[in-house]
Amino acid sequence: MIRKYKFGDPYPTDAIVKEVDLSNEKFPYFIKNMDKEVLELTYKMNKTDVVYGLGENMHGINKRGFHYTSFCTDEPIHAEDKVSLYAAHNFLLIEGEMNFGIFIDCPQKVEYDIGYTSFSILKITVKPVDSYIYIIEETVLNQIVKAFRELIGESYIPPKWAFGFQQSRWGYQNEEDIRTVAKKYRERKLPIDAIYLDIDYMENFKDFTMDKKKFPDFEQLVKDMKKENIRLVPIIDAGVKIEEGYSIYEEGVENKYFCTDINGEPFIGAVWPGRVHFPDFLNSKARKWFGLQYKVLLEKGIEGFWNDMNEPAIFYSEKGIKKAFDIIEKYKGKDLAIYDFFDLKDSILNVSNSIEDYKAIYHNVEGNRISHYLLHNLYGYHMTRGASEAFDILEKEKRILLFSRASSIGMHRYGGIWTGDNSSWWQHLLLNIKMMPSLNMCGFLYTGADTGGFGGHVTYDLMVRWIQFSIFTPLFRNHAALGTRDQELYQFEETNVFKQLLDFRYRFIPFLYSSFIFASKKADMLFKPLHFIYDADERSKTVEDQLILADTVMIAPIYEQNAMGRYIYLPEEMLCVRINKEGNWEYVVVDKGHTYMHLELEEFVFFIRKNQFVYFVNPAESVDDLNEDILTIIGYAKDVEEMECKVYKDDGYTKAINIENAYTISVKKRRKEWFAESTNKNISFEGVHIFS
Amino acid sequence: MIRKYKFGDPYPTDAIVKEVDLSNEKFPYFIKNMDKEVLELTYKMNKTDVVYGLGENMHGINKRGFHYTSFCTDEPIHAEDKVSLYAAHNFLLIEGEMNFGIFIDCPQKVEYDIGYTSFSILKITVKPVDSYIYIIEETVLNQIVKAFRELIGESYIPPKWAFGFQQSRWGYQNEEDIRTVAKKYRERKLPIDAIYLDIDYMENFKDFTMDKKKFPDFEQLVKDMKKENIRLVPIIDAGVKIEEGYSIYEEGVENKYFCTDINGEPFIGAVWPGRVHFPDFLNSKARKWFGLQYKVLLEKGIEGFWNDMNEPAIFYSEKGIKKAFDIIEKYKGKDLAIYDFFDLKDSILNVSNSIEDYKAIYHNVEGNRISHYLLHNLYGYHMTRGASEAFDILEKEKRILLFSRASSIGMHRYGGIWTGDNSSWWQHLLLNIKMMPSLNMCGFLYTGADTGGFGGHVTYDLMVRWIQFSIFTPLFRNHAALGTRDQELYQFEETNVFKQLLDFRYRFIPFLYSSFIFASKKADMLFKPLHFIYDADERSKTVEDQLILADTVMIAPIYEQNAMGRYIYLPEEMLCVRINKEGNWEYVVVDKGHTYMHLELEEFVFFIRKNQFVYFVNPAESVDDLNEDILTIIGYAKDVEEMECKVYKDDGYTKAINIENAYTISVKKRRKEWFAESTNKNISFEGVHIFS
Repeated sequence: MIRKYKFGDPYPTDAIVKEVDLSNEKFPYFIKNMDKEVLELTYKMNKTDVVYGLGENMHGINKRGFHYTSFCTDEPIHAEDKVSLYAAHNFLLIEGEMNFGIFIDCPQKVEYDIGYTSFSILKITVKPVDSYIYIIEETVLNQIVKAFRELIGESYIPPKWAFGFQQSRWGYQNEEDIRTVAKKYRERKLPIDAIYLDIDYMENFKDFTMDKKKFPDFEQLVKDMKKENIRLVPIIDAGVKIEEGYSIYEEGVENKYFCTDINGEPFIGAVWPGRVHFPDFLNSKARKWFGLQYKVLLEKGIEGFWNDMNEPAIFYSEKGIKKAFDIIEKYKGKDLAIYDFFDLKDSILNVSNSIEDYKAIYHNVEGNRISHYLLHNLYGYHMTRGASEAFDILEKEKRILLFSRASSIGMHRYGGIWTGDNSSWWQHLLLNIKMMPSLNMCGFLYTGADTGGFGGHVTYDLMVRWIQFSIFTPLFRNHAALGTRDQELYQFEETNVFKQLLDFRYRFIPFLYSSFIFASKKADMLFKPLHFIYDADERSKTVEDQLILADTVMIAPIYEQNAMGRYIYLPEEMLCVRINKEGNWEYVVVDKGHTYMHLELEEFVFFIRKNQFVYFVNPAESVDDLNEDILTIIGYAKDVEEMECKVYKDDGYTKAINIENAYTISVKKRRKEWFAESTNKNISFEGVHIFS
Repeated sequence: MIRKYKFGDPYPTDAIVKEVDLSNEKFPYFIKNMDKEVLELTYKMNKTDVVYGLGENMHGINKRGFHYTSFCTDEPIHAEDKVSLYAAHNFLLIEGEMNFGIFIDCPQKVEYDIGYTSFSILKITVKPVDSYIYIIEETVLNQIVKAFRELIGESYIPPKWAFGFQQSRWGYQNEEDIRTVAKKYRERKLPIDAIYLDIDYMENFKDFTMDKKKFPDFEQLVKDMKKENIRLVPIIDAGVKIEEGYSIYEEGVENKYFCTDINGEPFIGAVWPGRVHFPDFLNSKARKWFGLQYKVLLEKGIEGFWNDMNEPAIFYSEKGIKKAFDIIEKYKGKDLAIYDFFDLKDSILNVSNSIEDYKAIYHNVEGNRISHYLLHNLYGYHMTRGASEAFDILEKEKRILLFSRASSIGMHRYGGIWTGDNSSWWQHLLLNIKMMPSLNMCGFLYTGADTGGFGGHVTYDLMVRWIQFSIFTPLFRNHAALGTRDQELYQFEETNVFKQLLDFRYRFIPFLYSSFIFASKKADMLFKPLHFIYDADERSKTVEDQLILADTVMIAPIYEQNAMGRYIYLPEEMLCVRINKEGNWEYVVVDKGHTYMHLELEEFVFFIRKNQFVYFVNPAESVDDLNEDILTIIGYAKDVEEMECKVYKDDGYTKAINIENAYTISVKKRRKEWFAESTNKNISFEGVHIFS
């Protein structure tokens, strides 16, 4: 059951897709405190209550014991005390005396204090109050998520090639760099499906331009790469460079498509291109106009994009930097008292992404002038929505890869997200693991972290362990910042292990792709905490470093440096598949309970749940090269003689997806032997390995 | 066996206390590469080699997979990618084909790349080359540490009251604040032995002054607190305020006791007092002079000090800030290109603790002018040495509590350290656990972290879990930064659990104190990694979250938020002592192997090793109040009928410590019952609980 409440005068975020009537009942579960300014909701938690949700955020699957702010933030250092990342995912799921979900549907800042100030108090603060709030009641955790996801609509589905391995780096300067990456991957037979173009491909960081010196024949490059089954994925930044003669700038000014300042003039901020205007994505005409600009790249053969800097990040504004200079001027030549020195330091440090700047920006929403500060969390969402809506016009045939840095709920229908500018820290590998189910709850299925870490220098062992996890995430991209150590997989002394891991990924892609599509279409999570499956199992409530994938597989990655193994909890007996140092697969049934597994650096395990199976194909060097008609089955039959599963298979790009067209694989035991058969007559089985 | 090598022209650090002849043999284990500028030592690691050491540093007990720089640094954010903290502890212990230790004895920067750039390469870079290097060879890890510790001499031993619980906060402003803290602890019967005075007790941050307005009768306050068995522990900072009429400043200038700049004038930096000079602690006269200043506080009844800001921290220098202003001037009013903006930002950010400033400072070492940059790592060490040497003159009777932020090996004989300005992060609780054995290896026994975290806001659960660990560390201090949430234990809604935990600590103090003194006198570690005891046990090699304390107890703290238990590895069967929610002690023998223990927030465990016992006393509200003559024995007798242990007990302050005076406790089984007896006839036994 979903109950809807209205507070103040909410802005329509288009986050939900279902009509729900306003409830006449009293607002449940929370003590509600509201005045003109602020809405405070307070809930008393029992000691063992768990609070799930909040999507892209720091800390655990259980969000208790910290506080969070939904305010999309360009946060370069994801340390334990940060309260905001790039997203605003206002969904919480409380497992307590009664289980329920709560969704705060609004574009402004929302704060969550989840047992932080007081151990047993969950407090949500919405300021200003204008919002719709949905309370979702079902007995089972999974059902609450499903009801919520049905409320907000189907998750974005990318083309199949986007499930391949992808290589990125801020620093690829020109055609030569790109060709080198492609060549080295192909030479070493390391599978790859995409190479990314970060900000340097543009002419002076101008959106929808290509630097002709660096890329003399961009179209030919795209074609050549495509022949190798490698797609190029360019970045698009939110800010539009202020430059006479630059058509996007001129059209934007002429048509008033940019956000404005207090005087109604286009707001001036500075990002990579220097001084920029920000397209007014909340203005439907401007959004459409900007979306249609992607055409120039689509026409050159591009099939995927990543939208960046769309919180929006603002390095400085004209006003902000002037204010800083004024403070500096005040102190110049003076004998600085120590707190003056800190003031001086802060004056410069606080110039970027300042609240004052966000308050100084205005949108034109169908004729109404509205402060950006009040709509902040919709900006990246609507940039991505604009692109997606344009693709519906520009590209009738194919799904286009699209994901964003900033997001809020609603955007999940238009694109995926990556989890932003993490670092080469072991704790960020763990954070990546913990974040996946939280993101899935909020509708974001096509997602993953910068594997190996964006900032800082990755080590060989961190890269190996991180990939042992990323081979299971839909978005599997190796990305790094300018100035950090080269981290393309061929840069390491030892590449055998990477070949083995990527081969595993490609074997697994058909299962992952099919599972992904079912998750989107059935409003399901791809990654679940153990407790969502084993809800009667108390111990599983606190397991935060193992996940259930597609209800079939349990993963238990290693995320600690120098570890030679790890503890794993099995809520029931499972088949353990161990990929050993030599790349061989070993099988053993492991009992319910706690187990310690010795796993050297090049080794990993996954588990297949009872009475379930997974299908694999032979590896290939790209998704297009996969032969999905020859399958190998690996499964665990504990007390059944027959198991089946549905497989969704298509060309990988057709927009219309009908899961009714899925075929079925059945595995059956006859005279002590297991056989597989399929409703799809093209499918043959190379091996059927059912353990019991 | 210890081999000593000399490179270049080493500065005498006084780190070692034993004469060792220079070796004529080839430098072992490493490939040595040396030119005039730089000494590089390269060692090839096998896959399972472990590298221990480096004392106060980030990352694990096993230092592999990262790089570290020995260069004492005022580092406020202890994030995973930081390479230096406040100390330079140049001792490594390699467990490989052959086990050996290496000590780089020099005051300049040393860099360690331990499988960071290349997974199997350990590389040490000493630049300039001037150093003594010691190679220590023994077969057993423990013996290498022992040999090293004998080389560097006995570790500092504080007075016994310094093993009590201590409360600190940057922000206690006046007498009233201090009296309130004392009152609240005593009212709630929360044991406490010391309250700290951070920088605000001084008059304008001037060392050895007291603000008369805030502390109208400091001496009376000290007396009143002492009556409550609470000692006050004031901070002493390295920088001396430049102020006419301030005697320390004037004497320092007159006698040329301050570090100088390139022109021979006293160097001007800025720290808390504003513009300061830095005492030249490398100049023996200046060191003695500064040390004798502590007298003014000793005379007022003070018995303990903490030396801070002695890396030295430099917020800015006159030259540095001028340079920053020049850069800012250049950009003022200009249309900032984006990299100009970053340059502008960096110009201010890089003002503090800059290498240029360290290179611009000079010491006068018995008439020789030497660049501070070359002696940097000795500065905090020699500040603390100066105080300690002065205490030998000023205070004949009593041990004085003394510890420092900056340190290098050698200083361990003069004082302890706290592990600097950590944060209220769960990962810093784990770091605290991992750091303890590394510190012990390097001679630092009186040490601990700011419990609850210095920076940031602690939560109730983090404080509970952190204290469950800190009750075992010699220095057990709750400390927090200005502007963070009040974290005195009485500030939390729930204080029962803190009372239970502090009671446990005080029961345990006699055992901890005695063990500490044996560790110092016998060159032993108080905290050992499991593998140091169970060296044939391969699994124990990678256990980094359990420690052996005094060879008797194994601790296994919880350091993850929302955890309701943890995995524990037992290399052999042990007696598990569980302190449950009600504060009751439960006993169970746990088998060798892996176990998962359910431990709710208020619960913790420790283990007693086979054929060992621990003695406890009754709790009290201060160390002075402990009755150490009535003991309760808890032990685990697996296959013996008699066990004994030595106990060192004294008045807690006498300087002369002779462990030959230790008494013996024997426990014996007679007719199925266990009895205890002691060579000290004052001792009686309230309970003898031996499990088997």
